[in-house]
Amino acid sequence: MTIRVAVNGYGVIGKRVADAVRAMPDMDLVGVADIATDWRVRTAVGLGIAVYGATEAAAGAMSAVGLPVAGNLGDLLGRVDVVVDTTPKRVAAANLPGYRAAGVKAVLQGGESHATTGHSFVAQANYATAVGRDMTRVVSCNTTSVVRVLGALQDAGLLARARGVLIRRATDPGESHLGGIMNTMAPEAAIPSHQGPDATTVRPELDVVTIAAKASHTQTHQHFWTLQLTRPTSREEVLGALRAAPRIAFVRMADGLTALNTTVELMRDLGRPRGDMWEVALWEDVLSVQGDEAYLTYQVYNEAIVVPETIDAVRALSGTVSDGASSIALTDEVLGIRQEFLPATVGA
Amino acid sequence: MTIRVAVNGYGVIGKRVADAVRAMPDMDLVGVADIATDWRVRTAVGLGIAVYGATEAAAGAMSAVGLPVAGNLGDLLGRVDVVVDTTPKRVAAANLPGYRAAGVKAVLQGGESHATTGHSFVAQANYATAVGRDMTRVVSCNTTSVVRVLGALQDAGLLARARGVLIRRATDPGESHLGGIMNTMAPEAAIPSHQGPDATTVRPELDVVTIAAKASHTQTHQHFWTLQLTRPTSREEVLGALRAAPRIAFVRMADGLTALNTTVELMRDLGRPRGDMWEVALWEDVLSVQGDEAYLTYQVYNEAIVVPETIDAVRALSGTVSDGASSIALTDEVLGIRQEFLPATVGA
Amino acid sequence: MTIRVAVNGYGVIGKRVADAVRAMPDMDLVGVADIATDWRVRTAVGLGIAVYGATEAAAGAMSAVGLPVAGNLGDLLGRVDVVVDTTPKRVAAANLPGYRAAGVKAVLQGGESHATTGHSFVAQANYATAVGRDMTRVVSCNTTSVVRVLGALQDAGLLARARGVLIRRATDPGESHLGGIMNTMAPEAAIPSHQGPDATTVRPELDVVTIAAKASHTQTHQHFWTLQLTRPTSREEVLGALRAAPRIAFVRMADGLTALNTTVELMRDLGRPRGDMWEVALWEDVLSVQGDEAYLTYQVYNEAIVVPETIDAVRALSGTVSDGASSIALTDEVLGIRQEFLPATVGA
Amino acid sequence: MTIRVAVNGYGVIGKRVADAVRAMPDMDLVGVADIATDWRVRTAVGLGIAVYGATEAAAGAMSAVGLPVAGNLGDLLGRVDVVVDTTPKRVAAANLPGYRAAGVKAVLQGGESHATTGHSFVAQANYATAVGRDMTRVVSCNTTSVVRVLGALQDAGLLARARGVLIRRATDPGESHLGGIMNTMAPEAAIPSHQGPDATTVRPELDVVTIAAKASHTQTHQHFWTLQLTRPTSREEVLGALRAAPRIAFVRMADGLTALNTTVELMRDLGRPRGDMWEVALWEDVLSVQGDEAYLTYQVYNEAIVVPETIDAVRALSGTVSDGASSIALTDEVLGIRQEFLPATVGA
Repeated sequence: MTIRVAVNGYGVIGKRVADAVRAMPDMDLVGVADIATDWRVRTAVGLGIAVYGATEAAAGAMSAVGLPVAGNLGDLLGRVDVVVDTTPKRVAAANLPGYRAAGVKAVLQGGESHATTGHSFVAQANYATAVGRDMTRVVSCNTTSVVRVLGALQDAGLLARARGVLIRRATDPGESHLGGIMNTMAPEAAIPSHQGPDATTVRPELDVVTIAAKASHTQTHQHFWTLQLTRPTSREEVLGALRAAPRIAFVRMADGLTALNTTVELMRDLGRPRGDMWEVALWEDVLSVQGDEAYLTYQVYNEAIVVPETIDAVRALSGTVSDGASSIALTDEVLGIRQEFLPATVGA
Repeated sequence: MTIRVAVNGYGVIGKRVADAVRAMPDMDLVGVADIATDWRVRTAVGLGIAVYGATEAAAGAMSAVGLPVAGNLGDLLGRVDVVVDTTPKRVAAANLPGYRAAGVKAVLQGGESHATTGHSFVAQANYATAVGRDMTRVVSCNTTSVVRVLGALQDAGLLARARGVLIRRATDPGESHLGGIMNTMAPEAAIPSHQGPDATTVRPELDVVTIAAKASHTQTHQHFWTLQLTRPTSREEVLGALRAAPRIAFVRMADGLTALNTTVELMRDLGRPRGDMWEVALWEDVLSVQGDEAYLTYQVYNEAIVVPETIDAVRALSGTVSDGASSIALTDEVLGIRQEFLPATVGA
Repeated sequence: MTIRVAVNGYGVIGKRVADAVRAMPDMDLVGVADIATDWRVRTAVGLGIAVYGATEAAAGAMSAVGLPVAGNLGDLLGRVDVVVDTTPKRVAAANLPGYRAAGVKAVLQGGESHATTGHSFVAQANYATAVGRDMTRVVSCNTTSVVRVLGALQDAGLLARARGVLIRRATDPGESHLGGIMNTMAPEAAIPSHQGPDATTVRPELDVVTIAAKASHTQTHQHFWTLQLTRPTSREEVLGALRAAPRIAFVRMADGLTALNTTVELMRDLGRPRGDMWEVALWEDVLSVQGDEAYLTYQVYNEAIVVPETIDAVRALSGTVSDGASSIALTDEVLGIRQEFLPATVGA
Repeated sequence: MTIRVAVNGYGVIGKRVADAVRAMPDMDLVGVADIATDWRVRTAVGLGIAVYGATEAAAGAMSAVGLPVAGNLGDLLGRVDVVVDTTPKRVAAANLPGYRAAGVKAVLQGGESHATTGHSFVAQANYATAVGRDMTRVVSCNTTSVVRVLGALQDAGLLARARGVLIRRATDPGESHLGGIMNTMAPEAAIPSHQGPDATTVRPELDVVTIAAKASHTQTHQHFWTLQLTRPTSREEVLGALRAAPRIAFVRMADGLTALNTTVELMRDLGRPRGDMWEVALWEDVLSVQGDEAYLTYQVYNEAIVVPETIDAVRALSGTVSDGASSIALTDEVLGIRQEFLPATVGA
């Protein structure tokens, strides 16, 4: 059975989800809905994607400028099994009643609250609990990375307590002319920041506190962690626990990957679509273990990291694959998700 | 006949030329040479490209870390017809005697002086004069764009005099952790800057003066021109002359493409490798003609714009295609070079 | 007679004008009005400046948080001869009727249109025509610099036509966390930009076209000019004409002043308040004359350059000094405006 | 007795120390030494400071361009009691024998190792142990701030363990055209970074681990801390301990001071020389205490924070003031160091 999928909101996340859906052998992208008529939506048309107006007015505006419009959101919902809502923060909540009325299952994004759907999703943590549900929320890029990394250590029985500093990019590269911060940093006005508690919507037993700030760059977040372990252990054991988890890739300063832009360049060189990195990139040779504490840092490619999670969420809601590991494996194979980006060398 | 090509220097330009050579039906990438052993060269290995040490020492260092090395530069030169030298500024000049001794034709890049090769190359301007030569120099990204745009107007008999301000990116995105400028601009210390005179190495009859400065961004240059025309004319005639030339694409503020990052995002969305834009992107709806003056601005994607020119230069030196228009057409079709990036809409 | 002055709007320009008024021997800063209650207004209180609410509500809000409020804008207007309105763009126009009703003369800023006041002001160009008027508009930082530099050349009979590219800072340093552009440039959507025509509100006979763009830095604009002269001349004659004008300072690449941040640092080192540079900083050793064309570049410290003009405008409206040169000399002496920032050295 | 002081190295720190020495009632700035002849040294001349060549060659070069040179470093050392060495990292170590030979006491900066002088200095922590010594090292800006803040909590018996993330500015504003990072972050290649251990050269009993990275801005560092307290306590007790220490100022998000550039702007508005902030600026309303953990963030104005420490170090070495608290009080009064920057308001 092919899962018929709609994407509502053709923005930073939506366009990536649309491409990923098109790549999956068990999914069919019926169309995308949006309210814009500018280059973004016209790019979708150019790529051969069916475009719908997210509202009747939007559909009319698209027609008025000569864009081929396949219908409005209602039409689209009538043709799909699952809708992925990637509209801006808090818009999706208002869309939910419409999805329910149309009998379409819905995947929301991390801008929405946990309460909106009653279920928050990270594939490796709780795929099973989403199977067959009507809706779920894929948590934010930051929270997704926290669950991947801390969850891996917790699964290994190693993690007692995590304290993290999350330095966020100020805005996305494609929108960096519309607002951002310049030559400054902006700490969040309160500690703890929301990401720590948000991670517990997926893994309630985590003891995690986060401090967040924005920095003057546009591409990717960087997290810095101090981890209280359950016992003194070795660097190798910590790395082993991380290697056992999916969607964490290992990079090294020793390879010349010494800053956020170098891994971004590597993704471009690897031929990734849009230069996307779906994996959390963890610096293996920076990770340090001292007694019962571990310190580590990793990079979160915020534009892309939730895309594989969203694909898995679609599959879970559809009920076509009941096993999380199978869904993850399929998604990762199709996208080309890797644990190592470079061929091994002697001494590395 | 397939042209056997080497690339010496696997950096910003070299890796793109290597990919383009691999894509051409009439070329074979025999290998690339470099001196590094870090992630960049290892990425080439991962992509299945044969890697040579640019020096004997480099070949040894590569072997020492376990990289599969196909030989040294001398070995590589023995297997090719043409070498593209994309080593850093002024290194190529020192490599030339070795190329000559090996009987290999050489394409140098714009960091070298015109005198080094005695011939400077922009495909649409002077392909014919390069056919069968032993070597040529593909001019810099800035100069290439100047020749494309001003040359188009000169070919139409419209251009009397051009005065331009070239605002350059400070450094490339993949190297922006190694040095750049922050929160400032740095005007060049002398006017005219070298790009104007450099354009006359390809089109001697141009009356062009350039002023240059670096700004605090990493991606793409932007040029601003005041053009004295040979006579009062219409905006349509100027646009027509530009449309008659290859490798100039037209973008519009009205489409929401309002800043350098928006076109870069569009390239990512179009699925271009590395998000590259080989075309000069000229803002059609900003171009203004007042009497016998025209004003215009365009974007130069400095990492990629010389790649199609380099491909054409390889072909010209090889002598396999004597006609510039044919070479340009082949290169452009394979790469996917376009005049318009978006489907047309009503009123656009 | 001491001119009693109010400043309405204690922002980037307002706070500088307030300080300058306090420094002038013939002026008295009665107070400033604003609508904020945050650190900015509290800084004014800390500096001993009488603060008024720009509205009754603002006065109430100030009182509510315990700020000592001297009254509202109406009270302030009742105590002054001239008000300098430095409120955000287009707010001042709405304030004008209130100023008229209070019988207070008004100096507006460049965000307002020329039509609002019917008079646009740059001290060296048209002080005399403002003497005794009820109101005037000090033109924007960009336009002020254009009038200073081009006006100097026109006064010397040297300027036929000017074509300029104006690269603007994206936002001010103190507000760069509230929005700006990141790692991009944003060309203005139309050529010519408004600054050229705006300069002709002060000097109608100028033949000037400007092209503008924003770049990714916060501090100061940089202008690049191609000037058609009335005749071939020498570099020395052009420099001589510029040196004859007030408020143009000369800097040199040869001194190590090679980028916008270096002159800003120099201002900090000179002990200038807030590191302000009221002068246009023109690179003497970059200026080039070729036949009947001149090329030059200068820096516009946008936060401060209109401050001396505003002081002169206050004096002109008040009618206390009828001679522009006298007013300029007094303003410049008190502020410490200079033509050279560094002691001379041999060979410089 | 007036302490006769030399400053060797007129750069970012040296010029500030020179100004501070000139402001102190018990010190006399005999002169500064440097090797440059550009605008920086000429600014010193313009400010009336006696300039010496740091080498014989430098003195000659200065003379050659017409700068008034008071002699060479040897001459300068012959006229002073204490030299402050602010030359670039690791140069000072080579200068030490010359200082010893001249019988001049020396204050080095944090770029040098602790072993170089055998004593590391933060006034509030260990002034007494420096009194009468021949030399000491004022620790770096980062370490100084760590000692101020953590030391205050340790003095109050509250601090068990501190884990910090230090986000550094990439380069200084006056040098940001010479190199920096653009649109990226660069984590340090190893954890722990050196600042934690460095703090223990002043306070050996601290249990502190630091993780460091550079971000894409030029002005000021920002530190984020997770503090394990010795016992559960209240936010008020933690704040009380911090308020008892010198050179920590308190700022608040609620006042609109929400990012690094806002406090920098405030310093400019307060009329501080060069906009300097000598205090650690700690966000009072971000500080959070949960059980036996505290979380806080503060700003380190890296160009200025060590200036008052350096003044105190000069005084300690000279032996003229044996009591640290007296020296700190004098330094702070003369410079205008404050605990609060804004007048109090209701509810703040």
